[in-house]
Amino acid sequence: MKLQVTQENLSKALNSVAKVANTRSTLPVLANVLFKTVGNRLSIAGTNLDIAITHYIGSKVMEEGAITVPARLMQDFITSLPSSVISLELDENKLHIKTDKYQSTINGMSAEDFPVMPDISKGTEWNIPGKALKSALQQVVVAASTNETRPVLTGVFLHSHEGVLYAVATDSYRLAEKTLISTKEEIKLLVPASAMHDLLRILTDYEEDVQIVHNDQQILFKAGDVELVTRLIEGSYPDYRKLIPKEFKAKATLKRTELTNVTKVSSLFARESAGSITISLDEKKGELSVRSIASQLGENSSSADAKISGNGSITLNSKYLLDALNVFSGDNITLSFNGKLDPATLFDADNKDYLHVVMPLKS
Amino acid sequence: MKLQVTQENLSKALNSVAKVANTRSTLPVLANVLFKTVGNRLSIAGTNLDIAITHYIGSKVMEEGAITVPARLMQDFITSLPSSVISLELDENKLHIKTDKYQSTINGMSAEDFPVMPDISKGTEWNIPGKALKSALQQVVVAASTNETRPVLTGVFLHSHEGVLYAVATDSYRLAEKTLISTKEEIKLLVPASAMHDLLRILTDYEEDVQIVHNDQQILFKAGDVELVTRLIEGSYPDYRKLIPKEFKAKATLKRTELTNVTKVSSLFARESAGSITISLDEKKGELSVRSIASQLGENSSSADAKISGNGSITLNSKYLLDALNVFSGDNITLSFNGKLDPATLFDADNKDYLHVVMPLKS
Repeated sequence: MKLQVTQENLSKALNSVAKVANTRSTLPVLANVLFKTVGNRLSIAGTNLDIAITHYIGSKVMEEGAITVPARLMQDFITSLPSSVISLELDENKLHIKTDKYQSTINGMSAEDFPVMPDISKGTEWNIPGKALKSALQQVVVAASTNETRPVLTGVFLHSHEGVLYAVATDSYRLAEKTLISTKEEIKLLVPASAMHDLLRILTDYEEDVQIVHNDQQILFKAGDVELVTRLIEGSYPDYRKLIPKEFKAKATLKRTELTNVTKVSSLFARESAGSITISLDEKKGELSVRSIASQLGENSSSADAKISGNGSITLNSKYLLDALNVFSGDNITLSFNGKLDPATLFDADNKDYLHVVMPLKS
Repeated sequence: MKLQVTQENLSKALNSVAKVANTRSTLPVLANVLFKTVGNRLSIAGTNLDIAITHYIGSKVMEEGAITVPARLMQDFITSLPSSVISLELDENKLHIKTDKYQSTINGMSAEDFPVMPDISKGTEWNIPGKALKSALQQVVVAASTNETRPVLTGVFLHSHEGVLYAVATDSYRLAEKTLISTKEEIKLLVPASAMHDLLRILTDYEEDVQIVHNDQQILFKAGDVELVTRLIEGSYPDYRKLIPKEFKAKATLKRTELTNVTKVSSLFARESAGSITISLDEKKGELSVRSIASQLGENSSSADAKISGNGSITLNSKYLLDALNVFSGDNITLSFNGKLDPATLFDADNKDYLHVVMPLKS
């Protein structure tokens, strides 16, 4: 292997790939990234066996070849170099890396030891605008579970329903649903939320269409020069639609920053009670108030002006409420609920394509 | 106690004071800050028994009094509030805190349980410009030891020598000395470096004179409305002047950012060898090169253009070199040394009031 690449391209590729490499794996080669010439491009790949990311960059290839090198060292090294042309040359398992002022040799491991990336070329194929996918994932992954005892809840459920594609996640304490695009495909995919965090990282600056290919076991997301493959989660997703309230007895619309502030302040006094805060609506006063009590420390009540219809109160976990408020983007938020035992629902006041449901706590 | 203060003043005071409060202390009251009316001001004080910080803010005092409240909760709460007037009212040990939209009650502990701040009013007194003290401390604290086995090395040595005040710190592996101001006082003070970190935080936006008062055991730094008192370290400081080389056989002057870059890159390959890198000067080529070897990972050599007189090489700990480069402020740096067994000295190329000495490693 002998080739030249630019520092910018190589450091960008390493930044998207190196993060899935894992130095704590029992398989030492998984701490490495695979460098491999593919025509006049260099492919840089990393995997933790669940997720595989491959990034292709333009390259002047003088001699074909492949090698794996420690992901972390390579990333730290290349990103520290000044903007320049970098020469890579392989001599047995030693990769020589040269620029004008810097020369390094990194001891690699044979490319043959690196797990082969799964091939899912024979799957179903469709496209989705990168911007829409990105904003949907940003808004739903927060509600996915990190607890492996119920694997289906650790996924983001991408599925079609009456000709519309939805992204959903729920850990059974809260639920987030985003309406994506109209589609003619029959889609039912349960994608690990951890892989979606990696995909979000890759999509940061990406605005074009994302190509999706999937079979029963795996799914490929292709965003320009970057490909992410992940396993799908088996099992059937809960019938979440029946959990979403359709009508509400009490409703408050207010500035999102104000609801965030009063919730944050109240949460300081809710540390002893596992984040429990009680929100009350007073239609006459046009006021939403939040109350929390810490028997040791003291208590707090905060209020904010709001457009209110109906009266009532509900007790919520302030962490879940703050997580939700954090992924909305609009200026005004509507918080709706029925009684103390029913979930609260959050909408953007001017845009109904995203909703976030938070289950109540006993108070 | 009944009074009013502004959110801005109170949150600024808590930010300077709360950090010395310690929730892990065996004395629970040390996790609190003391609120106490003093004439028409409110004093907010915190201490860990080694260091005490007191911040005075203007206040409309309706009723005198004193109470201690949990430092962390109070700080988080007050800094989260919008800019406004805050009313504080004490009812037994409950502190009621009110603004227009927020009401809290914090359970306090009696002010009588709070340790009395030491009084050192009868000590020697002198002044120093805040800016000079701040830049001196920033440049020397990094070289102080964090290892308590030799307590004198955990201090910053403020002392006069032939009519000039110096600040010095050394952990025996490196040494930093800053020339401060001319003085007629006989000064010999060994101040804990940890207290100097707190002082730096307090001095962030402070440009006026700092008033210093000290006796044999303690020292007070007074910066406007904030006072910091700390114990002094006992013991005699090593005769460090004989460790500073006076003449050099080899010398390189180059851009500080360039020396930082090549050192950083080389340090990536020096992880196995405890940060050991070898710097070589080549007068003919006008080049400083840095080399490091990691037997497992590979090796690196980097170079930078430099104005050089003399040839030679020296092996240093890259962490110490980076720490030093980080506290210089000028654009150009001069690195000088004699042989492999003598220390390297760093100067700002255009300003000799600060020097940093790094001991060599065996290579």
